[in-house]
Amino acid sequence: MTVTYTARVANARFCGFSKLLLAWKGSIYKVLYKEFLAFFAMYTAISITYRFCLLEEQKRYFERLSIYCNHYASLIPMSFVLGFYVTLIVTRWWDQYTSIPLPDTIMCTLSGGLQGADERGRLLRRTLMRYASLSAILILRSVSTAVFKRFPTMDHVVEAGFMTREERKKFEGLHSPYNKYWIPCVWFTNLAAEARLEGRIKDDNTYKLLLEELNDFRGKCSLLFHYDMISVPLVYTQVVTLAVYSFFLVCLIGRQFLDPGQGYPGHDLDLYVPVFTLLQFFFYAGWLKVSTNDFFISFFTLSPFTNTRECKLLRLELWD
Amino acid sequence: MTVTYTARVANARFCGFSKLLLAWKGSIYKVLYKEFLAFFAMYTAISITYRFCLLEEQKRYFERLSIYCNHYASLIPMSFVLGFYVTLIVTRWWDQYTSIPLPDTIMCTLSGGLQGADERGRLLRRTLMRYASLSAILILRSVSTAVFKRFPTMDHVVEAGFMTREERKKFEGLHSPYNKYWIPCVWFTNLAAEARLEGRIKDDNTYKLLLEELNDFRGKCSLLFHYDMISVPLVYTQVVTLAVYSFFLVCLIGRQFLDPGQGYPGHDLDLYVPVFTLLQFFFYAGWLKVSTNDFFISFFTLSPFTNTRECKLLRLELWD
Amino acid sequence: MTVTYTARVANARFCGFSKLLLAWKGSIYKVLYKEFLAFFAMYTAISITYRFCLLEEQKRYFERLSIYCNHYASLIPMSFVLGFYVTLIVTRWWDQYTSIPLPDTIMCTLSGGLQGADERGRLLRRTLMRYASLSAILILRSVSTAVFKRFPTMDHVVEAGFMTREERKKFEGLHSPYNKYWIPCVWFTNLAAEARLEGRIKDDNTYKLLLEELNDFRGKCSLLFHYDMISVPLVYTQVVTLAVYSFFLVCLIGRQFLDPGQGYPGHDLDLYVPVFTLLQFFFYAGWLKVSTNDFFISFFTLSPFTNTRECKLLRLELWD
Amino acid sequence: MTVTYTARVANARFCGFSKLLLAWKGSIYKVLYKEFLAFFAMYTAISITYRFCLLEEQKRYFERLSIYCNHYASLIPMSFVLGFYVTLIVTRWWDQYTSIPLPDTIMCTLSGGLQGADERGRLLRRTLMRYASLSAILILRSVSTAVFKRFPTMDHVVEAGFMTREERKKFEGLHSPYNKYWIPCVWFTNLAAEARLEGRIKDDNTYKLLLEELNDFRGKCSLLFHYDMISVPLVYTQVVTLAVYSFFLVCLIGRQFLDPGQGYPGHDLDLYVPVFTLLQFFFYAGWLKVSTNDFFISFFTLSPFTNTRECKLLRLELWD
Amino acid sequence: MTVTYTARVANARFCGFSKLLLAWKGSIYKVLYKEFLAFFAMYTAISITYRFCLLEEQKRYFERLSIYCNHYASLIPMSFVLGFYVTLIVTRWWDQYTSIPLPDTIMCTLSGGLQGADERGRLLRRTLMRYASLSAILILRSVSTAVFKRFPTMDHVVEAGFMTREERKKFEGLHSPYNKYWIPCVWFTNLAAEARLEGRIKDDNTYKLLLEELNDFRGKCSLLFHYDMISVPLVYTQVVTLAVYSFFLVCLIGRQFLDPGQGYPGHDLDLYVPVFTLLQFFFYAGWLKVSTNDFFISFFTLSPFTNTRECKLLRLELWD
Repeated sequence: MTVTYTARVANARFCGFSKLLLAWKGSIYKVLYKEFLAFFAMYTAISITYRFCLLEEQKRYFERLSIYCNHYASLIPMSFVLGFYVTLIVTRWWDQYTSIPLPDTIMCTLSGGLQGADERGRLLRRTLMRYASLSAILILRSVSTAVFKRFPTMDHVVEAGFMTREERKKFEGLHSPYNKYWIPCVWFTNLAAEARLEGRIKDDNTYKLLLEELNDFRGKCSLLFHYDMISVPLVYTQVVTLAVYSFFLVCLIGRQFLDPGQGYPGHDLDLYVPVFTLLQFFFYAGWLKVSTNDFFISFFTLSPFTNTRECKLLRLELWD
Repeated sequence: MTVTYTARVANARFCGFSKLLLAWKGSIYKVLYKEFLAFFAMYTAISITYRFCLLEEQKRYFERLSIYCNHYASLIPMSFVLGFYVTLIVTRWWDQYTSIPLPDTIMCTLSGGLQGADERGRLLRRTLMRYASLSAILILRSVSTAVFKRFPTMDHVVEAGFMTREERKKFEGLHSPYNKYWIPCVWFTNLAAEARLEGRIKDDNTYKLLLEELNDFRGKCSLLFHYDMISVPLVYTQVVTLAVYSFFLVCLIGRQFLDPGQGYPGHDLDLYVPVFTLLQFFFYAGWLKVSTNDFFISFFTLSPFTNTRECKLLRLELWD
Repeated sequence: MTVTYTARVANARFCGFSKLLLAWKGSIYKVLYKEFLAFFAMYTAISITYRFCLLEEQKRYFERLSIYCNHYASLIPMSFVLGFYVTLIVTRWWDQYTSIPLPDTIMCTLSGGLQGADERGRLLRRTLMRYASLSAILILRSVSTAVFKRFPTMDHVVEAGFMTREERKKFEGLHSPYNKYWIPCVWFTNLAAEARLEGRIKDDNTYKLLLEELNDFRGKCSLLFHYDMISVPLVYTQVVTLAVYSFFLVCLIGRQFLDPGQGYPGHDLDLYVPVFTLLQFFFYAGWLKVSTNDFFISFFTLSPFTNTRECKLLRLELWD
Repeated sequence: MTVTYTARVANARFCGFSKLLLAWKGSIYKVLYKEFLAFFAMYTAISITYRFCLLEEQKRYFERLSIYCNHYASLIPMSFVLGFYVTLIVTRWWDQYTSIPLPDTIMCTLSGGLQGADERGRLLRRTLMRYASLSAILILRSVSTAVFKRFPTMDHVVEAGFMTREERKKFEGLHSPYNKYWIPCVWFTNLAAEARLEGRIKDDNTYKLLLEELNDFRGKCSLLFHYDMISVPLVYTQVVTLAVYSFFLVCLIGRQFLDPGQGYPGHDLDLYVPVFTLLQFFFYAGWLKVSTNDFFISFFTLSPFTNTRECKLLRLELWD
Repeated sequence: MTVTYTARVANARFCGFSKLLLAWKGSIYKVLYKEFLAFFAMYTAISITYRFCLLEEQKRYFERLSIYCNHYASLIPMSFVLGFYVTLIVTRWWDQYTSIPLPDTIMCTLSGGLQGADERGRLLRRTLMRYASLSAILILRSVSTAVFKRFPTMDHVVEAGFMTREERKKFEGLHSPYNKYWIPCVWFTNLAAEARLEGRIKDDNTYKLLLEELNDFRGKCSLLFHYDMISVPLVYTQVVTLAVYSFFLVCLIGRQFLDPGQGYPGHDLDLYVPVFTLLQFFFYAGWLKVSTNDFFISFFTLSPFTNTRECKLLRLELWD
């Protein structure tokens, strides 16, 4: 979830950050509270079992197991594995974000290069923009759940005015196992060539600029398509998940408060609530969560961007 | 605060850096002294309580608590969490900085490509530059507090001469829930097309260059807009803040000087002032502060850049 | 193996990641199970020998050896070496991936710039695309096992219609110890020059755009060629492999459960199965595997990309 | 100091690196020897005081203080702080280096695009190059001490032939609180436009190329200007300096050799000279020094680059 | 040494990596065996001295020294220093590699843009390519030992046909203390301008493309020149070398097996051969070696690239 909170920080003075800690929407608490409760419940269950259900001898064995677990938990290279993985994910995410094809540049070029205030001129400009937007929508549908929800079938795309019925027939007439986002780009070049022939596009230089901008636009669509097709290798994800899960499983046993009376070193105190382990849970599980849920799911689902802005903007520019 | 101190370093010889340590403006002391005093006061309060108010048995309990806290404080992965976060922030900051749209390139192109020393020629050049600057101001207003303070309403923009009253009406006639920084860009292309028709812009190549430079300029505006809209995920900020806050809370207890007479290992000495913990406070809290206050607030608020230079330069080039 | 699993994660809610852990195809288990079984077998063999075959004195010696190994295993800088190496490999991999020459941009330019719905026009477009694709295939054959399997000899290339017999003769008439992928590029420019002379390519600007796109395309082929020729220095690979192998060899001895009766510190418990060492095996060996097997072998061998898509797409665009 | 030592390494065989260790010019010893002597003197002073001046009881107290300091010195996160800072500085440095505007590209374009072997042709080419060089010099003067020393006043610039007296008047007629490096760029475009009108620049494409190259050149000047204006935040520099200084202050006490007779653990040996601490001094202080002195001061002061090459080259190309 | 071993890995299955470990050419063993033997010999000498030559009291002192060294060896921040340095070197290396100017793009442009199958046409194309290649050779001679060995004097360059005797005179007539690689670039632009005048280059766009490609080519030459002139600061190299050397010197004493009979903790076992220290030697020294020897020396000396391919290719394209 990409909640915009810069405004709140901007006014932060002394202790300003504490306010951020209490935010709920898009916060670490909201993201993690279920897992946190489950973790804490399991910890408590084990704690109660240890304190009240075990026989003396079983207690001794459990204590040795706990010390063993606590010692070896440090062998799990959490920082290393998480650091590497999250860096990878965040870099990918921002690269993907900057690859979202925005039709603004083509719009500017058209408004400067395709002359004519008459109907034909307006129609050409609008149709060219429609093709570019259609290309973007076709690729965003396959990449973003939000856009897919907005346009679940091609009917919706046609209905929203991004495609005429004739175009749809032509589009569906070409069979390909892959995303056909490049077809509207070809239509675009054909129509632009026509506009050049008619003299609506006055000179070759502007025509070249238009083709260059289209190539750039199509290149971004293509990049998004590839980002979607080639995920981070599953092995990485599994290594990281395995590391985090096993670390916290081990902590369930290894971080229990043992009977201070037994005199184990570092176990002089019985606090009942393992504050530090719970903090670590927040740090590491939050770190992992952000890298997966947030970016890959929430971003494309809940962010105002794909859901509202893009589609609205497209509408605005083309039909208003 | 981006205080320029290179000059002072440049003359630094032996012990040169010590002078930098004593700087106040934009320094770590100024940024942190309130938090530092609060931290130290709390530490002292706890210290006094421990030394004079607690009963013997409570003291023993506190001592065990302190040792426990000190031990587990090392579980908070400060370097890892801070390192990752600050790298992210600093990279974003510099990327944002280099995305600030500067009208110089368009100006150079205009001066080489839009001929005519007569009034019409000057007017065309000035109006085109005005549109580009207007676009930049519209986006900077939403991004930077300094520019917003300079131009709190559209009235100020009109008054400063960046927009005529007629343009304002047209501008406000188009409704959009988003920043309409792209409208002056469209005006720009339209006026440029007109200048081309009039023959003021002599050839297609220069015209293409102008459109390319405008696209580049508009692209930077767009990038700034996206940087502003998509913050660093809140979860990261919370994890980092939580880590730093909890670390120092734990230090308040864990780094107390315990009674040397009790013979706890590593507690042979009672120095009263926990020098190392205070140093750590400077390192870690300073690191975090820099990543937030400095870059996101002070940069756009206090830096000479946005406040003075940009606006003055714009004025200079256009109206003098 | 680049298995696409984003869809599965997208629907993940509470405990969603656990499902990913159970995936088999492209998973860490599939990649590692043979090595894992070998490692575990060796561990068990040593364990049985220690427990049942050694004399008392030999046991004591083995115990000291084990403690020594366990202590010094931490001297092997696993995280450092692996982190550096894997970062290098992953960066290279993605750079290589984005260097794969895609003919789409040239196709778009051709469809907008090379006019004519008649036979000659179609033939020119198809032949130019064929030359570009041929160039890509020549380079991909030398880089990717999948493409090589599809086109093991030049006969297959000719048969698939990417090259005529006359072209093949010309191609083979030029002797060079290196990949001759640049020859079709030269043909491309020659044919394009011809099309320009005939007036099929209407103006110089489009012609220039076509040459620019070809240069870009050829530059990507060249980059792939260089990536293939210049591997990561063997010394790095050897250092990493040596580190991982020696670490696990040492663990075979150092992580044995020693007789708790001997009272060695940290050896109070005999669990028979060294859970943490096995987890470490997964983390580190999986990390290394991913960096080598997955990227350098599986990617080009098994990924749907090179095998299917590229070739099919090429076909589709050109002969259907 | 950027001493070129590649040649020496190139012939290095067995033990080849040891020669590099003995280099003096630009070496770590030259950079650090004053600080090193000061540090060692202070260490020795404290050592002597401890050994000969303190009373028995004071000795005991000092010993406990020393152990305390030694223990807590490890709390100062040197690697983390230095690593982050130095990476930042080195990246900035290289980015700055590659931003130095080199007039070669403009020169090549001029030689290919501005025709005429007669006096007028030569004059045009020379004047255009002069404007570009003047722009570079104006910005380098404000950035580099070496260039500033070469051209301390505008008189020197005029005298060296980069500016005529008339140009200087025009230049100084325009008041701006900022560097006016962009004025010669405007002159450049004006003169180029004139040359285009005269037909000296034959066609629009070459003219466009010239403007593009100028924009690129001016962009680099602008980037240098911004790098100079926006330093690394003072807070970072202070945190790093504070960390390094406090670390070594603590080492002065914490790394003293204590009386082996007192039986403190790890203090069985009295070597008098703390070899490892001195080595650490070299590593950490050298690391910091390189990041500051070397890059920000020496580079622009002593490097052969700015001082000699640039200026000489400029001369060479233009007046010989 | 950049040995291509991908093919061998590609067929690797179970235990596939072990084969790589046994490679000799370009391997870590070949690179390090001399240093390794020297290190091991010194270790053995010290070991023998300790065991057989020292008196009892001297042994006790040596043992305390050894424990002291072993403890403080961990203060040398090997991973940090090496990691930083090697990352810097590897990044530089790959950047340098991608900066090697390849004449292919110019060749493609020429073949598409400079018409004429007659003698004059061929001569123009060949002479332009010769100038570009000459520029590359002049810069590679100063950067690469391999190219320098192939062309030790300008006579060799003339003899190989890259330069005529008249060109050489003109070339040597211009005195400059720096590499004059840019002179052939100027010749190139002059000849291209001539070809444009003759109408051999048909249109302005192609001419502009040619100049753009030349500028790109010349920019790469210039970058290589700067990479060669500005080395990694000597201080870094010295810090790293000092760290590695002092670490292994300390290990010579600190990693000796001490008499188990004295009961020092961690010294229960006498293995005679310090396996782990030798492994560390391989890891760290190999890491350093790769960063220096391999990249800066071997790459340009032994790699098939500069030595054979470049020169042969040049020949091939131009004179066959």
